[in-house]
Amino acid sequence: MSNADIKIVEVAIVGAGVAGLKAAQTILCDSRSKVKAKDVLVLEAQNRVGGRILTDRTSSKFAYNYDLGAAWFHDSLTNVVLKEATKLDNFNREQDTYYDDKDAKVYSQDGPVDLVETKINRVYDDLEKFIELYFYNDIEVEDMSLKEITNKYLDEYRNILTDEQQKYCRLLVRHYESWYGISWDIISAKYVLMDHHGRDLLNKNGYDFIIDKLKSDIPNESILLNAQVKVIDRSNKAHSRKILLELSSGIKVYCNYVVVTVPQSILQLPQSDPYGITWEPALPSNFQEALSSIHFGSLGKVIFEFDSIWWDKNEDRFTVLASETQDKPASEPITSHPKPFDYHTFIVNFASVHKENILRGSGLVILTQSPLTEYLESHSKEDAWRYYKPILEKLVVPGSTISNPINTIITDWTQNPYIRGSYAALHTHDDPSSLVIQLSGEIDNTGIVGHPNIRFAGEHAISDGAGCVHGAYSSGQREGEWVIQDMN
Amino acid sequence: MSNADIKIVEVAIVGAGVAGLKAAQTILCDSRSKVKAKDVLVLEAQNRVGGRILTDRTSSKFAYNYDLGAAWFHDSLTNVVLKEATKLDNFNREQDTYYDDKDAKVYSQDGPVDLVETKINRVYDDLEKFIELYFYNDIEVEDMSLKEITNKYLDEYRNILTDEQQKYCRLLVRHYESWYGISWDIISAKYVLMDHHGRDLLNKNGYDFIIDKLKSDIPNESILLNAQVKVIDRSNKAHSRKILLELSSGIKVYCNYVVVTVPQSILQLPQSDPYGITWEPALPSNFQEALSSIHFGSLGKVIFEFDSIWWDKNEDRFTVLASETQDKPASEPITSHPKPFDYHTFIVNFASVHKENILRGSGLVILTQSPLTEYLESHSKEDAWRYYKPILEKLVVPGSTISNPINTIITDWTQNPYIRGSYAALHTHDDPSSLVIQLSGEIDNTGIVGHPNIRFAGEHAISDGAGCVHGAYSSGQREGEWVIQDMN
Repeated sequence: MSNADIKIVEVAIVGAGVAGLKAAQTILCDSRSKVKAKDVLVLEAQNRVGGRILTDRTSSKFAYNYDLGAAWFHDSLTNVVLKEATKLDNFNREQDTYYDDKDAKVYSQDGPVDLVETKINRVYDDLEKFIELYFYNDIEVEDMSLKEITNKYLDEYRNILTDEQQKYCRLLVRHYESWYGISWDIISAKYVLMDHHGRDLLNKNGYDFIIDKLKSDIPNESILLNAQVKVIDRSNKAHSRKILLELSSGIKVYCNYVVVTVPQSILQLPQSDPYGITWEPALPSNFQEALSSIHFGSLGKVIFEFDSIWWDKNEDRFTVLASETQDKPASEPITSHPKPFDYHTFIVNFASVHKENILRGSGLVILTQSPLTEYLESHSKEDAWRYYKPILEKLVVPGSTISNPINTIITDWTQNPYIRGSYAALHTHDDPSSLVIQLSGEIDNTGIVGHPNIRFAGEHAISDGAGCVHGAYSSGQREGEWVIQDMN
Repeated sequence: MSNADIKIVEVAIVGAGVAGLKAAQTILCDSRSKVKAKDVLVLEAQNRVGGRILTDRTSSKFAYNYDLGAAWFHDSLTNVVLKEATKLDNFNREQDTYYDDKDAKVYSQDGPVDLVETKINRVYDDLEKFIELYFYNDIEVEDMSLKEITNKYLDEYRNILTDEQQKYCRLLVRHYESWYGISWDIISAKYVLMDHHGRDLLNKNGYDFIIDKLKSDIPNESILLNAQVKVIDRSNKAHSRKILLELSSGIKVYCNYVVVTVPQSILQLPQSDPYGITWEPALPSNFQEALSSIHFGSLGKVIFEFDSIWWDKNEDRFTVLASETQDKPASEPITSHPKPFDYHTFIVNFASVHKENILRGSGLVILTQSPLTEYLESHSKEDAWRYYKPILEKLVVPGSTISNPINTIITDWTQNPYIRGSYAALHTHDDPSSLVIQLSGEIDNTGIVGHPNIRFAGEHAISDGAGCVHGAYSSGQREGEWVIQDMN
């Protein structure tokens, strides 16, 4: 083995997404840190940094920047990444962001649905309150799916709801599918409700600004691309540095600290999987149990660009409801081309997002959820259009005609073996905190007991901002600071 | 003193509102109770039962029943009075109630304001979340007024809000005045947010149904009207029954238990006040402090009936915003006829409430808050119309003309010396729980220490349902059950 195949560092960071880069940047730049650049190495399995932040700046016919992964500043009142962004010279909040949160215009197969006039919005609020109250008083109340609790509510209050309210409230609740990337028949009712700390702010100029910013603070030599970690050995005796990482390339990295920021989906792979990690010795049972107490969603995007705008350019968002009945459970894998109204559709209108620059045409960004994401991401652009054309036809404004797209972009998150979906998602009976408790290392006797120098970060390793860029960012900062403090 | 001037009972209940009647009914009807009818006496200062439930069934030109006091089933998902009502033969949920909660149509002096198109609804959500987060992390954070925190939010986020959003969000927040009956410059920001357990359901058929129901379970002889309690003496030695109540009429009531359900406003009067209660000996200091840690609001109503409908009959509610600036603080007492847009206006449209019976004309029910309530309740119907005409003119639909009212009803809650306003309200720096802790008797060493047989009930004596009929009802039940249990 040549010297080039062995690397000896103080801190190895596995994964160059926002969590890994923030951890590295913290360790390198924090004034309290004594670590030198050569002592930090970020190992990235893919041939690019950014992880689930990926801005497409080249495909659009309208010079739009499409975020194929994370796109919004969620929790914008408290979002730490947004706060950091506003300090940057090259970030202009007015030009670079847009609150695309006007009440969504809702359509069913039968046409527009007026949620205000029918008071479906009020009934929907009651449904959410019903869910909260159902699980509120007793932590032991058994979980059920979002679909089941919705039916339970509608059943209990049938007498006081109009047919219209019953019908559309049931379909409307599926909007959560576009949050979690999984379908309502498996979404946990117990944990479906969210407490947003402020409006959602769309990052028009591309989320990779934060990746670029972090990367600019890290020397190029400290980031190793195409470096897939296959083994994390905490029992090695070959070197005084306590931890050995073996890469698929054969490179060995010895270090005293490792911050593991791979997606939850990678942690959950069996070690026999070519993309999984082998732990030497095996992970403790508490850790393994926590890993099996939560799932991974599949939010994806299909983007169509058209050379004319035949939909309402003043609406931020469109929702096209699924049909009332489907032939099979919504979560069942798709084996043949799906019927158009079998799934919930959520659309962001880039004609409205980019009001400053109204062109002849524009784009519609559609969010997809499992199992539709897997299907569309593994099929052709033509299949995507074939599926969406009858849905998007509902959006055509009087006097206009739907046109075929001049450009189609489909994400590949479910097909990317290093990502395998979108982010943590709670199925019925899942547990939102077990894994975070194990990974955050904030409580004694959690994580890899006896090996506190093996740290974890990422959207799945933190409660505040879970599933979000700012959560991943904070978790990276947390671990960077932990390492600094431990070394001092 | 004749025998007729002395009454000896087991339980005296002071006040025949919903709390007092529910306490009496519980003591009389609960299967565990051994108390006989002659051993219970309800003492009511006014010449009618019902307290702040008062249904006007005679004044309307359209045979509407107007609730001059409590009118809605709040928290309708969990409301115990609503649950009881649905069991009654003479209560028909479909006919007797109406969800008058369609998104309110909002007007300013300049005309209609579209909260959706301008996304003011989203900014408003952010303001509420800002308030929550501001006080959330630290119970010690100093309180401020609703007006102050609104200005603080707008100041902090000025750069990202449109002029329209800033202007109208600030005016919109005053809708809380119609909840609490006090003005935004004195409303506690710390405790302004509410957690509603379900939609608000208007009681079309009149809230006195619950008074009638409770009263039907209580013998007439057990209720004494025009019986104002002036002294509550817990140190009397003249009789084996430990508590002596002296009435303004000279009647003396000896009892072993007393449930005090007078309004908080009466408890807060100095004993020198002709409508106050003298406690012998004086109330303990903890109790007196608690009484001064909370205020009493002044929600009132002005009802106009018109012989034509010149407003939109399909809207449930109208809001007419105040003007941006006023000459004096909103809470300052009104000394001369007010300018029309000096105060926030909230209107319930009875043309929409009574859709089942569209007549040539209909009514508008306007909620008023302090200090406007005090002004209007002490002035003429003509003054009320003079004040509201320019406000209601905003509601005129194209092709119609405003007409003068054919009928005007104004409440008199602030002028009624036995009521003196509406219900508990939190001024800046008030404390929502001190008084409840003292009155609910659920914690040791609270209330009138050493005299647990002196009980308290009413909307001000309970947390769940505070300020509401169902809260008062539950508190009455709680105290009735306490007495039964203590006697057994």
